[in-house]
Amino acid sequence: MSHGSGKGSMELLETVVFPALVPGGVGTLEDAFIFDIPGRRFAFTTDSFVVSPLEFPGGDIGKLAACGTINDLSMMAAKPILLSVALILEEGLDIAFLAKMLHSLHAVCASQGVRIACGDTKVVDRGKADGMFINTSGIGIVKVGISLSAANARAGDIVIVSGGIGLHGTTVLAQRKNLHFATAAVSDCAPLFSLSDALLSAVPLTRTLRDATRGGLAAVVYEIARASKACIVIDEASVPVPKVVRGACAFLGMDPLHIANEGRFIAIVPPESAGAAIAALHAHPDGRDACVIGTVTPAGRFPALLTTAIGGTRPLEMPPGELLPRIC
Amino acid sequence: MSHGSGKGSMELLETVVFPALVPGGVGTLEDAFIFDIPGRRFAFTTDSFVVSPLEFPGGDIGKLAACGTINDLSMMAAKPILLSVALILEEGLDIAFLAKMLHSLHAVCASQGVRIACGDTKVVDRGKADGMFINTSGIGIVKVGISLSAANARAGDIVIVSGGIGLHGTTVLAQRKNLHFATAAVSDCAPLFSLSDALLSAVPLTRTLRDATRGGLAAVVYEIARASKACIVIDEASVPVPKVVRGACAFLGMDPLHIANEGRFIAIVPPESAGAAIAALHAHPDGRDACVIGTVTPAGRFPALLTTAIGGTRPLEMPPGELLPRIC
Repeated sequence: MSHGSGKGSMELLETVVFPALVPGGVGTLEDAFIFDIPGRRFAFTTDSFVVSPLEFPGGDIGKLAACGTINDLSMMAAKPILLSVALILEEGLDIAFLAKMLHSLHAVCASQGVRIACGDTKVVDRGKADGMFINTSGIGIVKVGISLSAANARAGDIVIVSGGIGLHGTTVLAQRKNLHFATAAVSDCAPLFSLSDALLSAVPLTRTLRDATRGGLAAVVYEIARASKACIVIDEASVPVPKVVRGACAFLGMDPLHIANEGRFIAIVPPESAGAAIAALHAHPDGRDACVIGTVTPAGRFPALLTTAIGGTRPLEMPPGELLPRIC
Repeated sequence: MSHGSGKGSMELLETVVFPALVPGGVGTLEDAFIFDIPGRRFAFTTDSFVVSPLEFPGGDIGKLAACGTINDLSMMAAKPILLSVALILEEGLDIAFLAKMLHSLHAVCASQGVRIACGDTKVVDRGKADGMFINTSGIGIVKVGISLSAANARAGDIVIVSGGIGLHGTTVLAQRKNLHFATAAVSDCAPLFSLSDALLSAVPLTRTLRDATRGGLAAVVYEIARASKACIVIDEASVPVPKVVRGACAFLGMDPLHIANEGRFIAIVPPESAGAAIAALHAHPDGRDACVIGTVTPAGRFPALLTTAIGGTRPLEMPPGELLPRIC
């Protein structure tokens, strides 16, 4: 608990937090980070991360905390530039483990040219948090001439997914329940800016980008359809579902469309741009499995529909509640 | 737990979180808030709040979460404009209580003209958090022509405190330990922008502003002296300590200089501006008890010294560790 304030806190910052997050040195510690960017449009977002377990194949809470906020900015066509990092640490957390998580967070930021601008560290008593929680908030510069919104989908538009779905949720669940599948599940957790920016450069008239995190593809499709006052029809057979996700879902009675992703997005594009969009995504190493999975139609009785592999149609529902708690 | 994602989460947002935080309506929910402010200088800060108990005389975690980030911006001469609100909620938290905390947070923002721009809500299992934690990050516009830093103090400068110290820490401690003093302690938790801005308008050459939160006045003085490579000498008899704080400290063997505040700041001003600074603070309803408490001298053996009431001098130390855990 002595790491919560005073000398102890300064020691924790100077020996663990700063070396990991700001390897170049922090300069004078101020109450806020000051920056200038004349005449641009900005995006601002925040996300807390409470994933359990803190490490999983393909990522950890540090990587997730960087990717989550970078991706929220990317989905608004904003190049992430500044990140805040606020830690809530449980008394007794292993310091080497903390450093590992922070290095993981920093590595993503460094690879993306994102500066860690400000931070905060709180320590709570043993049993009053679950290891560690991280909040990151981010500021990005919006790409000129691009205007994305969940409310922009129009009848006739094409729905694209950037890759195979469900890996993050399946991985965390397997890790948590100690399940072993024939193929090991590895989280898709990744920063999406480069891929989304490639799409926006090819198709500036893209209507909507959304990363399919909590609630999975179904929740995102449902929310876009509702915000746009349209109906979205997803062709189930077209949705790329990796073998391990399909197997896990069959085994556990879950729907891949409800499983969380941390490195996949949905794009809604005008019909005449669908080819260019798919070509731009396929040309990028992270977008090789991108494909068209549906279309936007006029509003109907349900916000979203699923045409099933055997030719039927059923409403695509939001997952009813917390299917997989603490996935991010 | 069902409030953590999917339909349950949307319900929680629509029935509790949005009505409290964004009473005018939220419009389309996007991944990030987009804003334009051409040609200005910005400040960016973050803070997590883990105070225990969640309510105390003079405030609660909601008010604290708004004031803490507003104050960090104010201390960098930045007018707070945008706030993010990220909630980590423990399963079983009373919904009416949550709404009360959010209304409290919103009331401060509304009074200060701060817009709640974006947010996030996570739910963790019972026992995996302590009721609720809140992270707020904030963006402010820096006042033109002002340049504040903890590194700016110079020998000859005057040290001012904006009011009586130690009330927040004393109040939270009394509440937590169920202590009753002759006079009830009430937290000083308050937004500081208006008062700090009045000072900066009167004394644009102000060197440093710092709110004296964790670690109290001593920690802030110590940090400023260290950052400025100077020594700060505090005259103990000049420091305004309310009777209830003095009594509680005598009773519990604590030093008022180490007790946290949530609505008091230290200002370092050039000697020729000390009169104007005090006059500006006294003219503001929140600054009536402001006074000079010390001077900056050339660097010496210790970053900070205290001249005691009986004429001695001793080093003013950082509090060694967590004196009062979870004060904010």
